[in-house]
Amino acid sequence: MITAQEIWTDVVALRSKAPLVHNITNYVVMNTTANALLAIGASPVMAHAVQEVEEIVKLAATVGGSLVINIGTLSSRWVKSMARAMKAAKEHHVPIVFDPVGAGASGYRTATSKRLLETFSPTVIRGNASEIAAITDHSARTKGVDSTLSSSDVFQTAQTLAAKTSCTVCVSGQVDLVTDGVRSAHIRNGHPLMRKVTGLGCTSTALIAAFLAVNSNAFAATSHAMAVMGICGELAAQQASGPGTLQLYLYDALYNLNQNQIETLLK
Amino acid sequence: MITAQEIWTDVVALRSKAPLVHNITNYVVMNTTANALLAIGASPVMAHAVQEVEEIVKLAATVGGSLVINIGTLSSRWVKSMARAMKAAKEHHVPIVFDPVGAGASGYRTATSKRLLETFSPTVIRGNASEIAAITDHSARTKGVDSTLSSSDVFQTAQTLAAKTSCTVCVSGQVDLVTDGVRSAHIRNGHPLMRKVTGLGCTSTALIAAFLAVNSNAFAATSHAMAVMGICGELAAQQASGPGTLQLYLYDALYNLNQNQIETLLK
Amino acid sequence: MITAQEIWTDVVALRSKAPLVHNITNYVVMNTTANALLAIGASPVMAHAVQEVEEIVKLAATVGGSLVINIGTLSSRWVKSMARAMKAAKEHHVPIVFDPVGAGASGYRTATSKRLLETFSPTVIRGNASEIAAITDHSARTKGVDSTLSSSDVFQTAQTLAAKTSCTVCVSGQVDLVTDGVRSAHIRNGHPLMRKVTGLGCTSTALIAAFLAVNSNAFAATSHAMAVMGICGELAAQQASGPGTLQLYLYDALYNLNQNQIETLLK
Repeated sequence: MITAQEIWTDVVALRSKAPLVHNITNYVVMNTTANALLAIGASPVMAHAVQEVEEIVKLAATVGGSLVINIGTLSSRWVKSMARAMKAAKEHHVPIVFDPVGAGASGYRTATSKRLLETFSPTVIRGNASEIAAITDHSARTKGVDSTLSSSDVFQTAQTLAAKTSCTVCVSGQVDLVTDGVRSAHIRNGHPLMRKVTGLGCTSTALIAAFLAVNSNAFAATSHAMAVMGICGELAAQQASGPGTLQLYLYDALYNLNQNQIETLLK
Repeated sequence: MITAQEIWTDVVALRSKAPLVHNITNYVVMNTTANALLAIGASPVMAHAVQEVEEIVKLAATVGGSLVINIGTLSSRWVKSMARAMKAAKEHHVPIVFDPVGAGASGYRTATSKRLLETFSPTVIRGNASEIAAITDHSARTKGVDSTLSSSDVFQTAQTLAAKTSCTVCVSGQVDLVTDGVRSAHIRNGHPLMRKVTGLGCTSTALIAAFLAVNSNAFAATSHAMAVMGICGELAAQQASGPGTLQLYLYDALYNLNQNQIETLLK
Repeated sequence: MITAQEIWTDVVALRSKAPLVHNITNYVVMNTTANALLAIGASPVMAHAVQEVEEIVKLAATVGGSLVINIGTLSSRWVKSMARAMKAAKEHHVPIVFDPVGAGASGYRTATSKRLLETFSPTVIRGNASEIAAITDHSARTKGVDSTLSSSDVFQTAQTLAAKTSCTVCVSGQVDLVTDGVRSAHIRNGHPLMRKVTGLGCTSTALIAAFLAVNSNAFAATSHAMAVMGICGELAAQQASGPGTLQLYLYDALYNLNQNQIETLLK
């Protein structure tokens, strides 16, 4: 059971500790996920050069932080940096969140995701249902980077993936599923308009990394991040006149989030 | 003649079919053009790795879609991917929109644009007047990525280019010109404040790709996209207090666009 | 002493001349700094290909412009382009603003910054206190890209750097310090919420480049740009409900800035 009190405890910790979140992520969302991380209280750094990723990961280990690996606009050089960073993160006990954006849309994405997952078991994997299906050889189709499945379609496969890899798996969708292979949580917050803003899945991934940096319980941290994302999306939708204004009000909601809002809106 | 009814028919088709628009585009506008495509109803995917562009183009051919090639922040590896994607698009009959951002500002951009255009004739070319002048050896100067000419200055050259290449050519500006070498349309919608937002030309290019995916008449699809862009820009300008808010309200306007607004505002 | 009248003179010049600002900058802020440059009246171009950077710099020399070098998401190929562009800018007397984003967070960033600074003395260096400390071997620590020092902590070291390199040095923070080694100015405008928006330091760097293009007095141009940034941040904060809306209102404020606002708000 996720409680509003536990979510709030993590938010307070985030705001006081401002953990370093090292992102190797895609071009589309670099700006927006950095803004979401700043708004919730974390300190984002975007760094992908092979010459520096290990050092930045070590810095995250020293000052308290986490690593985001997001393959949304991958290419061979970036994948090399991702592998180096993940290796360093495993060595230095820095939690890793992996986002297999568009897995299933190309063999390159699917194969890269599988290889990185097998070689460097991340702490959390977050994707939409099509992406989770693709990396588990679930019989399903995808269309680009948008899912054509719901999270319940891949419930079993996500549980199996979590158990096999010892990762927490998060399948985002209308209902977000979080499972560590044994326990599972369903997060029912969020708003349909969020699907019309690019990269909000990637933003969820970044928020999971922020929560992981202050809560070593990966199942709880992931669930809390997804609940905060959904709640802030609902708060933003109350003010928005469309997807453009929604994105801006989402940052404002992350920044202004208070305990009462979590208690009132958590489903 | 463009009619409000025909524009609306395309918008309805876009929202119901959510076609896949594959973008190989510049870093500046990846986020903003993805958001515009989502707002109008399309399903954007950004993918540039040489390992995957052909497969994503084939996916677009299978599920219904189109390809955007935008050289705004080109480099040699990206140009290689652009060529591969355009070749695949020609083979699989996926419509291509080409945007020669900054052609004329550097010999590299001009030469790359000409070579790609000659080798893989796209369906539509969209640029500002300076860019169209540059790729046609029209005697004109440019200043960076902003045009120093108006679309009427290059009317003849655009017609000639369209006739020679069998492309539809769109010259955007205060008045947007669309020509297939025989017919021509002038779109008079839009708002001066739009020039103060970066990448709205690139956004027009992306919208043209979306409309091409649901309307095989390139001349009509291009004209409809430019009219929708201009109308939504006007709607956004009614609410905006400057270029920052204009950009956000533009997404909201694309998302909320209805038939009555098109009928009322189409010039 | 900075005066409102002198700031306003630069703003008027910017709006009438629309100087070309060539940016080789990081992925995170390409869109946002282009928008800030457009809003204040400049004409931004983002170009990093080795094949074209010298030509774009020459164009800036011809039409009147400046060069931004920002290492926020550096990699070896980009550093090569930065060096070429800086060399061309020195040859053609194009003013350069250098932003050592994240210097101190990795040896690669620190070493690259030092090497570029020593080889191609820029006109202005702008960084936060941790970054300025890192490039001057000041005994200080950084945490990612956010500063853990204030500008007063590095006052002496900034003065020494400016004198040694003949650059104007700007240390941004709660109070912005500008020094050319002899004179120094303290800019006290700005708002705490600005720290919660990613890349506003990079935006300051871009604005400095815009002002340098119309005011050859680097000390004055830098001070004016920082004052405008702070004043517009305050104006934006008056309307904003959080960091998301702040960013948008900042562009609006840059676009709408008038003489009376500068006179009223300049501290």
